[in-house]
Amino acid sequence: MTNPTACLLVIGNEILSGRTQDVNINFLARRLGQIGIPLREVRVIPDVPETIIGTVNAVRASFDHVFTTGGIGPTHDDITAECISAAFGVPWEIHAEAFALMNARYPAGEFNAARQRMATMPRGATLIENSVSTAPGFTIGNVHVMAGVPRIMQAMFEALAPTLEGGPPIISRAVYALGLLEGRIAADLEAVQKRFPQLDVGSYPFAREAGHGVAIVSKGTDIAAAEAATAEVTVLMEKLGLAPIQGEPAA
Amino acid sequence: MTNPTACLLVIGNEILSGRTQDVNINFLARRLGQIGIPLREVRVIPDVPETIIGTVNAVRASFDHVFTTGGIGPTHDDITAECISAAFGVPWEIHAEAFALMNARYPAGEFNAARQRMATMPRGATLIENSVSTAPGFTIGNVHVMAGVPRIMQAMFEALAPTLEGGPPIISRAVYALGLLEGRIAADLEAVQKRFPQLDVGSYPFAREAGHGVAIVSKGTDIAAAEAATAEVTVLMEKLGLAPIQGEPAA
Repeated sequence: MTNPTACLLVIGNEILSGRTQDVNINFLARRLGQIGIPLREVRVIPDVPETIIGTVNAVRASFDHVFTTGGIGPTHDDITAECISAAFGVPWEIHAEAFALMNARYPAGEFNAARQRMATMPRGATLIENSVSTAPGFTIGNVHVMAGVPRIMQAMFEALAPTLEGGPPIISRAVYALGLLEGRIAADLEAVQKRFPQLDVGSYPFAREAGHGVAIVSKGTDIAAAEAATAEVTVLMEKLGLAPIQGEPAA
Repeated sequence: MTNPTACLLVIGNEILSGRTQDVNINFLARRLGQIGIPLREVRVIPDVPETIIGTVNAVRASFDHVFTTGGIGPTHDDITAECISAAFGVPWEIHAEAFALMNARYPAGEFNAARQRMATMPRGATLIENSVSTAPGFTIGNVHVMAGVPRIMQAMFEALAPTLEGGPPIISRAVYALGLLEGRIAADLEAVQKRFPQLDVGSYPFAREAGHGVAIVSKGTDIAAAEAATAEVTVLMEKLGLAPIQGEPAA
């Protein structure tokens, strides 16, 4: 079975200006790998309508699933839902179920126009539950629209995940050695990659308090192959006179 | 004067798998804003030749500068330089100056084929100094190719930055209030944005130990406008009975 693919759109000027350090990419990368829908591309784009619309239409044609984070709050710079409507060519209108959920949440008179914006969605959208702060995300076609605030995004993703059909989970096996230099193992490592074409064999230098070295990570859906490749890399490290350690080096 | 634009390509399976938390986007976003070449888009793409080649050619036509991070080491998964050569349609060949620099660094016999890969570049490339570990980055056309390891990338960027002609720096002014909810200020905030079309006025909820609230950030090249917009937002917060504080909330 092949794995369905995912693309993530991070929508927000605050990432592109450097105001905010993104942590959503990493969370979704890990979780999507676990449920067998590996993340194949990320685009970080600004709050500009034509950019959002054009990018959504480009990537929803190229990937099985598109996830978006950001731009679904109540302020003028929250334009994701309106842009997704335009991308799909459907009306941007009050979603009755979302409206009812949010109307029940606010005291009388406080569910104002700005907040009603959060219940305004592309026609045909289905809701993604927000267990943190009520205002839901939504899915339309293969596009899943989530909040940008990490805690809310994570809750939305966990509500959505059981509804997504993934392939086998992407697993990894790692081995590392202190004192290893990439240039000393590169040629042999390429041969390992060639013997295991079903894996991605990656080489990652690190510099930690415990010392410098390189971690070699074998990744894919074939656990037996990942373990065999890691065993071969372990032997290569030993032949260089090093003491390989299974797993990833501590941060 | 308008500002030249930048796009960043983060090349590497390790970001897309979630193995590695990217920090290069944030560093470059901040530094590029400071030198007046604002970051307008980021794409994170895998170590797949046709993806790298296609993406480089798409974005180098759309932005004034393209920066890449990752994939210029000595191992088989380091394919950035070869792919950039293909994107520009020029030979991928030993760069004499890079070769000499690296040859001088290694003890006799240790500048092996894998390491020579790091001195193999698109014909016509000019070097970006690497003060950390010698192996240089390079520029070809409007594409600047840097390492993925943050410390090395940062050194390369600082070597490159003085050669780039930016526009006026992007500055920001911020004010925040504890207890503020976005939905209460959204309508007035939109009016502020409309009065200052030369700025991006962004609204960012936060939840910190000190409490919940919202920060309003006005950003652009017009410092006087950013200060005037922030003064208006301060008044809006006071009218809601809150105590606005200039600057960003502490992390």
